[in-house]
Amino acid sequence: MAKKNMIIAQSGGPSSAINASICGAISRAIAADEIGHVFGAVNGMQGLLDRKIICIDEQMIKTEDFDMLIHTPAQALGSSRYKIPQGPDGDAVFEQILEILREYNIGYFFYNGGNDSMDTVNRVANFLKEKNIDDIVAVGIPKTIDNDLMFTDHTPGFGSAARYVATSIAELELDSGVYPNPGVTIVEIMGRNAGWLTAASVLAKDSGSTAPDLIYLPEVAFSKDKFIEQLGAKLEEKKHVLVAVSEGIRDKDGVYLADTGAAVDMFGHKTLGGVATELEKLIKEKLPIDKLKIRPVQFSTLQRAGAHLASDTDLKESFQCGFRAVEAGIAGKTAIMITINRTSDEPYLVKYDEAPLNNIANAEKEVPAEWITEDGAGVTQDMVTYLRPLVSGEASEKFVAGLPQFFRFDWTKIINPADYK
Amino acid sequence: MAKKNMIIAQSGGPSSAINASICGAISRAIAADEIGHVFGAVNGMQGLLDRKIICIDEQMIKTEDFDMLIHTPAQALGSSRYKIPQGPDGDAVFEQILEILREYNIGYFFYNGGNDSMDTVNRVANFLKEKNIDDIVAVGIPKTIDNDLMFTDHTPGFGSAARYVATSIAELELDSGVYPNPGVTIVEIMGRNAGWLTAASVLAKDSGSTAPDLIYLPEVAFSKDKFIEQLGAKLEEKKHVLVAVSEGIRDKDGVYLADTGAAVDMFGHKTLGGVATELEKLIKEKLPIDKLKIRPVQFSTLQRAGAHLASDTDLKESFQCGFRAVEAGIAGKTAIMITINRTSDEPYLVKYDEAPLNNIANAEKEVPAEWITEDGAGVTQDMVTYLRPLVSGEASEKFVAGLPQFFRFDWTKIINPADYK
Repeated sequence: MAKKNMIIAQSGGPSSAINASICGAISRAIAADEIGHVFGAVNGMQGLLDRKIICIDEQMIKTEDFDMLIHTPAQALGSSRYKIPQGPDGDAVFEQILEILREYNIGYFFYNGGNDSMDTVNRVANFLKEKNIDDIVAVGIPKTIDNDLMFTDHTPGFGSAARYVATSIAELELDSGVYPNPGVTIVEIMGRNAGWLTAASVLAKDSGSTAPDLIYLPEVAFSKDKFIEQLGAKLEEKKHVLVAVSEGIRDKDGVYLADTGAAVDMFGHKTLGGVATELEKLIKEKLPIDKLKIRPVQFSTLQRAGAHLASDTDLKESFQCGFRAVEAGIAGKTAIMITINRTSDEPYLVKYDEAPLNNIANAEKEVPAEWITEDGAGVTQDMVTYLRPLVSGEASEKFVAGLPQFFRFDWTKIINPADYK
Repeated sequence: MAKKNMIIAQSGGPSSAINASICGAISRAIAADEIGHVFGAVNGMQGLLDRKIICIDEQMIKTEDFDMLIHTPAQALGSSRYKIPQGPDGDAVFEQILEILREYNIGYFFYNGGNDSMDTVNRVANFLKEKNIDDIVAVGIPKTIDNDLMFTDHTPGFGSAARYVATSIAELELDSGVYPNPGVTIVEIMGRNAGWLTAASVLAKDSGSTAPDLIYLPEVAFSKDKFIEQLGAKLEEKKHVLVAVSEGIRDKDGVYLADTGAAVDMFGHKTLGGVATELEKLIKEKLPIDKLKIRPVQFSTLQRAGAHLASDTDLKESFQCGFRAVEAGIAGKTAIMITINRTSDEPYLVKYDEAPLNNIANAEKEVPAEWITEDGAGVTQDMVTYLRPLVSGEASEKFVAGLPQFFRFDWTKIINPADYK
């Protein structure tokens, strides 16, 4: 196969570890005889369609650039929520994608994201197969703080978000316990359908914390009565109670506690309101305790972009996923996603593998029922064993005078494909 | 003066640096021939009155204990919002305090906190003076993330909170910019009357961030119309705008934007609601832009307890304040607070001094008008020069398997004074 260019794009929600995958991919690509230039599409699939394409190997020159980019949170190439339509409209889009890939002489297409992104790259790969195009590969690189991708032990981005959640909860617990009056801290954690990140709050106990006292995941039907009963019992035991709750908790009929009645987005996801404030209202109504201080806390986007608490294990694995995706692409593999398979908990060992995108796209891996305690308000030791290695290691982020230093691509340097034949 | 015991207590809101002051105080005390045991009152003045007193030098034995305590956020001895009443009721309380100090053979009383706490220790000191008691000193150790104490260049706790705010905003800015649609991120920062911490958001620019774009402090009368005008202008310039706003902003009549109508607490402070969500409502009403994503973010208590982003400069100065407070006490000084005087910006140099508590208690140091830009929505280069050294240096917190390790006193080991004569 003649030398071809490569393009990489990022999609879905931000993460602290996503750029480590680009670094891995670029590192492998610049060493490959088969690959010419390394392009990046700005703002995912939307950017590709808009020809918002920059030349990465011309913008990243120094070793320090790589070091900085690894520790830079949120998609350095931007993201997109664009979904390729189904049916004839979609076919026209796929034709357009092919035209652009040809125009830029691209033989390697890498898409870095979560479930929806894997669906997108899968559809691109299937389209290329149907057209019998064998000189362009399309490979997925996993990323999601939700940890809900199938066929991989865990996903890049999850470990760093988990470390942020556990550390912050350990700190919040100390803060919440300083006053003598009773208090309830309700920490709302991301995770619409899968409770992995909320479950990771349990690791605060490895900081010597008594928190979290109660953990509510979307996998368990939420009962307001049971919650009030469990919280009341905890407040009998101890003065300060910390509740970790997933934004996606819903009742036995599947109604989100934080349903705002908002419309769904292009991928069919609903905007959810504040679960923590909903629970605050509920406690005030149903559990009137004198001088009870209720503090709802939302980690907001810091839980996914708080790179200063990235897990070194996570960043290294994220790098490897990008590296191995390019490796697989060079070997002519297509329609696959790189996966991480754990071979041992202690010592923690993984090997990298591949899984067909057809099997992954749009399926969601939830927390298994046997890792949730019987009362539905906690997780088991098996979950702790699973989580521990993922948050391990401090990322060696670069600070200058106390402030983090990030790498930024220049998104305005849009290239002319004629210059890169 | 015969050997006497010492007691230290903490008060007010938590901070990441407050325990470094205890470490400094204990370090000096255990080396002093004049001081017997080092006691801690659990939950501030309230704990002293309740005789919830523990023996610190018996609980802290290893060097590692000190190392861990320095990096442990929030008062390790607990806090209190108790205020000693005025008038005859107050006199009775002061008599009771004296009785307890005698009972425990205490000659050195140290109180670590902000404005309200300095008022408390000042009143204790004045009571002792009136009674002509010259064998007990009462000394204040400054602490407040608000940085609003008079007669000190800055306060311990502020630098760490400032580093948390600036770093988190730099990360949030990257996160908020990944999607192509326009967005406004509104970050609400602590500071009821003084805007120092909100001003510190400007240091995100030292991370290469374009954020914050607009900064609103309580020192400037807030105008909704002007805000909408300034935000609208920014959104013409750039797609993603980040606003840093103090929880304490108020209009020209002094009405808090986030006034919940709640009653005031013992110190006359009002509970404020969410400024960020108030501004979100305002933008939706007055600045209808298609697909504008508005994200209100509250740093909540993490901005004061996020020890993983503590400033090393702050921790070292906090340690020194505790150390020098005990030094001053041993020298027989009373009714004073330790102050930090800056002698040079570059290189950053400070010297420690003392100021009479009478001058400090209940006064508040606000951001000077000349450090706020003319449009009222930013800060000047002088402010940046002032702030920079305070966030400098990474605290060497101890992580095990990625999670922070904290020191905890055993609050249940209440001592019997008869054992410590």
